[in-house]
Formats: sequence, structure tokens, C-alpha cells
Amino acid sequence: MNLKKLAAALACCAFLSPALAETVKVEMTVKEVDIAVDNAGNERRMWTYEGTIPGPLVRVTQGDVVEFTLHNHPDNGNSHSMDFHAARVDVLDEFTDVKPGESKSFSFSADYPGVFFYHCGSESMSEHISRGMYGVIIVDPKEGYSDAYPKPDREYVLVQGDLFEAGANAEDITMGNRWEGVLINGKVFHYDPVHDPNASLTLEAKPGERVRLYYVNAMINEAAAMHPIAGIWDRVWDNGNPLNLRHGMQTVEVAPAHGMVMDIIPPAGRATNNAIVDHRMRHALNGGITVLMAHDQADASKGRGEALVLR
Amino acid sequence: MNLKKLAAALACCAFLSPALAETVKVEMTVKEVDIAVDNAGNERRMWTYEGTIPGPLVRVTQGDVVEFTLHNHPDNGNSHSMDFHAARVDVLDEFTDVKPGESKSFSFSADYPGVFFYHCGSESMSEHISRGMYGVIIVDPKEGYSDAYPKPDREYVLVQGDLFEAGANAEDITMGNRWEGVLINGKVFHYDPVHDPNASLTLEAKPGERVRLYYVNAMINEAAAMHPIAGIWDRVWDNGNPLNLRHGMQTVEVAPAHGMVMDIIPPAGRATNNAIVDHRMRHALNGGITVLMAHDQADASKGRGEALVLR
Amino acid sequence: MNLKKLAAALACCAFLSPALAETVKVEMTVKEVDIAVDNAGNERRMWTYEGTIPGPLVRVTQGDVVEFTLHNHPDNGNSHSMDFHAARVDVLDEFTDVKPGESKSFSFSADYPGVFFYHCGSESMSEHISRGMYGVIIVDPKEGYSDAYPKPDREYVLVQGDLFEAGANAEDITMGNRWEGVLINGKVFHYDPVHDPNASLTLEAKPGERVRLYYVNAMINEAAAMHPIAGIWDRVWDNGNPLNLRHGMQTVEVAPAHGMVMDIIPPAGRATNNAIVDHRMRHALNGGITVLMAHDQADASKGRGEALVLR
Repeated sequence: MNLKKLAAALACCAFLSPALAETVKVEMTVKEVDIAVDNAGNERRMWTYEGTIPGPLVRVTQGDVVEFTLHNHPDNGNSHSMDFHAARVDVLDEFTDVKPGESKSFSFSADYPGVFFYHCGSESMSEHISRGMYGVIIVDPKEGYSDAYPKPDREYVLVQGDLFEAGANAEDITMGNRWEGVLINGKVFHYDPVHDPNASLTLEAKPGERVRLYYVNAMINEAAAMHPIAGIWDRVWDNGNPLNLRHGMQTVEVAPAHGMVMDIIPPAGRATNNAIVDHRMRHALNGGITVLMAHDQADASKGRGEALVLR
Repeated sequence: MNLKKLAAALACCAFLSPALAETVKVEMTVKEVDIAVDNAGNERRMWTYEGTIPGPLVRVTQGDVVEFTLHNHPDNGNSHSMDFHAARVDVLDEFTDVKPGESKSFSFSADYPGVFFYHCGSESMSEHISRGMYGVIIVDPKEGYSDAYPKPDREYVLVQGDLFEAGANAEDITMGNRWEGVLINGKVFHYDPVHDPNASLTLEAKPGERVRLYYVNAMINEAAAMHPIAGIWDRVWDNGNPLNLRHGMQTVEVAPAHGMVMDIIPPAGRATNNAIVDHRMRHALNGGITVLMAHDQADASKGRGEALVLR
Repeated sequence: MNLKKLAAALACCAFLSPALAETVKVEMTVKEVDIAVDNAGNERRMWTYEGTIPGPLVRVTQGDVVEFTLHNHPDNGNSHSMDFHAARVDVLDEFTDVKPGESKSFSFSADYPGVFFYHCGSESMSEHISRGMYGVIIVDPKEGYSDAYPKPDREYVLVQGDLFEAGANAEDITMGNRWEGVLINGKVFHYDPVHDPNASLTLEAKPGERVRLYYVNAMINEAAAMHPIAGIWDRVWDNGNPLNLRHGMQTVEVAPAHGMVMDIIPPAGRATNNAIVDHRMRHALNGGITVLMAHDQADASKGRGEALVLR
């Protein structure tokens, strides 16, 4: 991004010029692996982009061209694919299946700003998604920050997915049977030491900082009712688009396969904790709670640079 | 509409004059019939307005008066009624039951623009709706098109309903039991030749055209998470009201018994396909997928004139 | 409020001054009681704030400081707590458990305008909420009324909660099992004499009046699709914030644990009835219907003063 930032500094409007749009190369390998789905280290056979849930965070600027290559590792047992919600392409071309050992490349222009879901679209899509084949692409608005979309002090990515019982088949999963819990960035109660003694991570910020959440609901059937306990969303942008602004929201409904940007500003002058929950109790109490600690000694590296998805 | 259009051409503001509001007569007969609920021709006993699911499309301009008459065919076994979501009347008067062989007339002024559900409100409303007694009324804004609500190149109506097992009773239906699938304009996978070899219809447009969907969720209990696979909603108007504009949305949650207008612009310069899905996998994989083909040879009659609801 | 109103009259801008923000003392005692959950008087063991469902209505102006004290009555069998959705505090401090016989005080500034949920957050939150521990706090905007947020003629508060079977345990409740019906302000079909011969109350207004509903969805797992049968929401403010305005909506989806303000204007010049329903049939037909009668003899005290929550 350095070249673009330099250009932007030299000429205020050049930033908007299509000629300066970057080409961003992204490559991912699908890996079917046994990985921990909770803080105790219990493993499940999951299907992943690059071995993690969620897959790698992709971040570009509106107008950039993404040149993407998907590799399906030869050890895998299934065909897989990639469906970027930020792309305007052909579902029967770019998003088609890639067999184990094969690769596929396509490119797209990131035309709309916001936070977008990506996921596998191979059959049964229910199983591919709920086994972990999903991630987030952030498309920053080409205009940059503004009054309507102020610069945050910290940024975190949260992806909420389903966990089904180990033996659930595709039909079970599609119909919502044998559902077991909620994964936040791949683990049950990932960032909640209050409900899980094995949890070691929390989101952090200093009091008074503007904390931006890029939230994607990867659940295959159910909306999420996102609420920050003991706090209020200062602003919410539907799909993360600066034009879609709502103010002062206690709870925001996020459809399955949708993305939302929510800002919270913990009060200045004191230490506080928020529990960011899906207020659907079935989701919250089965894994969907994340603690945000606001205190003066907040880890300066969290919510910045490479630490948007805490692993 | 010709008289009104002429008047509008002669005097720019006369278009807004209540004196020019039209009176639109609409008549429907309820028919309990055996009709196909899939592309293979499998029939179910359904209850319908005029023998089709959805019933006839009603389209008026904001300010028009709709003079409506409902006939309950004497061969029918049940009382029926009409609840127009676009009407401001008395639930205990206009919307009451009509016995077989009887008729009822009422009129209302279409005060608010948008896309509105209509359905039967007789007991058990769950059964009457899920057996197919629903349709759409579009109320075009009296201001016409504008920057906030641009003229589309194609328009399609999609109504998503439930299909319950043949023997499901009213209580089953109300409680969501014995649910079987999703009907798009009356049929499972109606416009999806990818998932149903018997499907012969798709939505069509030319690359770069603005395609407007008037979408109504007729499901009795469940929201729909509408997403165009391989595309992005350029604009979404909640309830179809030009004032309720959102931009660049990947997915839009549509409450049961609600309507939404979504525009998609397939990219210019190439042929593409979108799969318009309810991203709730349980809905999508049980019938809720519609293919939009964008190609230069798109059927010029589709999405225009009388071809908004493809039958 | 008199002092503030006087000050506002004397100096137009002083109204916005923090120096004039009021301190509002609120005190509630948790009472575990047997109370009627329907119009026939059938009782259930419920947990309540002050012995009623919903608990007392709290109403303040944006900027006010709420000094709150919770008493857990010594006769109670459980710890309880208070989670105000209008507060920005510390979930691990202000919102913690209070044992039977003990009390806890905390204060918060009502920084954001709107209609907010309050509820018990003690474990299992599912059970505490669904047994009736919830209510509403309205934070009126400090700017007062405006074109974007006009003064209503009547105001009503509606809170929609779950009713589970008497023997349902916390796990049942969390998972949505043994669900039985919908409570509107604490009772099944509370204000619906059409569906319940024991119902004696309805909402009332005069034809043409602007009727404002402060609606909170206290259901623990399910969204509500709020629709006024035979009417249209003239305006809807998400979370009740004047900045979050939508126009002309037939149905509005309200996430669990969220609040919404909806205005309806029954037509002038005639008597009408609206049935305000959660259009999810499972909710509507199990208790979630409220009648609004618009007629010239409407009770002048209803929807005003202390009569916002009809008991």
C-alpha cells in the first residue's frame, strides 16, 4: 500500500484515479485439517483456507483489482471453490469447483466498499461453510475517512460461524439439525475468559478509543443480534458502506452471509469491559461472547497492523 | 396510465395533483385448485387468487384509488379474504371473511410508495398464506424516477413462499413443522436450471443493464437473507420506498410479510450469471435459488410489460 | 421535568447544556411472584422488577444521569442483576449479581436517545429474561421534537416476551425448547379481544392522530416482524434514534434485545381498527396480536401521562 499512500500524499485527488488502483495478488490453499475448535484444544476435522478459521484477511481499497488463485491441496478429499461477496463475476465461471490437486485463478475489481464475506460455494455449500471455509475481505472506501466514516483507533475482525456435531452430515447441517455451538474466529468462547477458563485472549483498547469491528455472520441459517453488553454501538454501517450509517444502536441484526461495521467507544476516564454478544441466547451461551477490555495498559499492538484477527 | 402520462408531459407538476389520481379497478376470484408446485409438474391442493401463485400483480401509482372486489368461488370449501399491505383501512371491515359463493368490495388509496405484500387473512392465516394465497402490489412513487430512484432497464417480481407437506395441518404450519421447501413464484427452484433439470425459465438481462427486483417474503415464519451470488445489490430500498435507500449491499434481510426493492447491475462487456439466493442454506437448497442470466441475446420481452412475473 | 422545561423556555440553547442535565433516581426491587400471564388469570411463577411484567417504565432525557438502585428482595431464591441497554458502564462491575436480601447502586449518563431494553443478566440469562425480568427505558432526544421526529398525539409501550412451559429448565429455554407463547406486556393476547374473550384492554386513539409505539423485543432467540394489519408505519426510527429514520414501512424486523419506535396514523374521518402483529405466524397466533382502535370516543387518558404501558 505504500506506493498508493505516497501518491495520495502528493496529489489529493489522484487517490481517486482509476490509474492508481492497485493490483493485489491473493493466493490461498484449501487444507482439510484437524484443528482446535475451542480454547481447550479439542480438535475437529475442518476444511479451511490456509489452515485457519477464518481464512486469511484480505484487505484492499475500493477500485483495486484482486488477482486471486485458489489451490486445492492434493491431499484433500473434496472439491472446493471460492465465492467472494465483494466480486461481480460469473457464478458459473469464476466460482466453480476446483478438484484436489488443481488450481484456479480469476480476478475482480473491488467496486463497492465495505466488509464482505468470502466462502466456499461447492456442494453441499452448507457443509463447506460450516466446516470453516470462510473469511473476510475488507474493501476500504476510496475516499478514505470522513465525518461520516471517521478513522478508528483500533480495528478488529470477528467472524461468527456454526459448529455442528462431529458426525452431522450435509442434510443435517442444511436443516439446522445436530447444531452444537457458535465459533468466534474459529473457536467457541474464543475471547471470553469469563465463560471459559481456557480463554487467554480478549479484544483490548484504551478508554475513549474508537474501536471498529468488522463483523461477518458466517452462520448458514441464522441471523445474529449483535449487542455490546454495557455499551452502545456509536455508529453502525450496513455492509460497512460509509453511506449506510445508523447512530446509537443497542443491537444490530446481521443476516446470515452478511457483513456489518460497528463502532464502540468505551467511556473515557475509567476501565470497563464489554461483552460483545449475539443476544440470541442460544448463540451467546453456546460460544458467541467476546470480551472487549478497555484499560490504560491495553496492548498497543492489538487491533492494529497484522493483529485485526486475534489468533 | 396513458391519460396520466399525457397530463404529466403537458404540465410538470400536474402529475402530483390529487385530481389526476386514477381509480384502478381490481377484481380477483379465489380458486382452490390442484396446481404444479415444481417444474416437474407435481401438483398440490393449493388455494389461490385467480388460480396462480402468486396471484395477479397489481400495479398503481401513489395516490391512486384501488377499487377492489374479491369473489370467493362457490366451489371452494373455505372462507377467504384479502389483506392488502398497501391499504389503510379497518381490519374488522375491509379485511373480513368472504364465504364461498359470496363477494366483497372495498376501496383504498395507495398512500405510500413501494412494494407491498397482499395475502389472505382468514383463519388459520398460516394455512391460507402457505397454501398460496398471496401476491404483490407495486405502488410506484408519484414523483416518478429520480437520482435516488433511477429508472431500471428490467423489472422482475419474486415472491418467496413456504411449501409444507401435503398432510400438514394448520397447527403444524403455524409452528413450522412439516416444512418441506421454498416456492419462488409458486414453484421449487422455479428459475434454476442448475439445480433442477426441469426448470426452463431464467431471469434475463443484457450486461450493464439495471435490473430491479420487487421482492416479497411470503414465508409465514422466517426471514430471508437475499444475496445475488457473484454480484452485489447496487441499491436497496427498504419497503421499496425511494426515501429508504441503502448502497452496495451483499445481503439484505427481508422480514416475513415484508417487501424490498433491490437493484443489480451485471457487469458490462461480458456475459455473467448470478444465482439470486436466500443465503439461509435451508431455504436456498430447498428451492430458493433463481438464476439471472446477463448476455447480449437476452430476451427483449422479459422483465418488461406483462413479463415481470415469469410464468 | 418541570425545572428543565422552565429552563428550556427561558433560554433556547440552555436546554442542551450539560449543566442542566437532570439526575433521575430510579429504584427497583426484584420480586419472584406468581402472577397472571393471560387475561383469564392463569398464574405462573415469574421473576419481576417490582412485581410486574414489564418492570417500571423509566423515562429520561438524553444527557440525564440515572442513579439506579436494585434491591433483591430477601424472600427471593435467586441472585439477580440489572443490565440497562442505555448505559455505558462495566459489565463486570455495574451489571454484576445481587444476592437475595442485598442491594446495589450505580449510575450512568443516558448518552444516546432512543428506546432501550433493560433486563436481568444473571445466569442463566435465558431463564431470567424469559421469566419476566425486563422493561423499557426511553431516552428522549435532548433536541426535543423536530421535523424528523414530530410530536406524537399518543404514545404506547409494547414489550414482547416469551412464555415457556411451566417446567422448562434453563437449558430448554436457551435452546428454544418447550416454548409456549408470546407475552405482550406480560400477557398472552393482552390487548386482543378478537382472539381472547377475556381481553378487556385495547390501545386507543382518535382517527388521524399520530400514535407512537415504543416497541422492545424481549424474546430471547427470535426476531419480531412488526406489522400493523390494515395500516402502514408512517415512520420507523431504528433504536428510536431520530437520525435513523425510515418511511412508509409495512413490516419492520426487530432483533431480539432491540428497540424500535414506530408511528402509525390511522386515517382521519372514520373509525378503524389495526391489529398490530408480529407477522411471524408462530408468534402472532400464540399471543402476539394487539388491537389499536381509532374512534372519536377514544379514552383521552390512554397513551398519555402514566398510561403508556396499559395494565
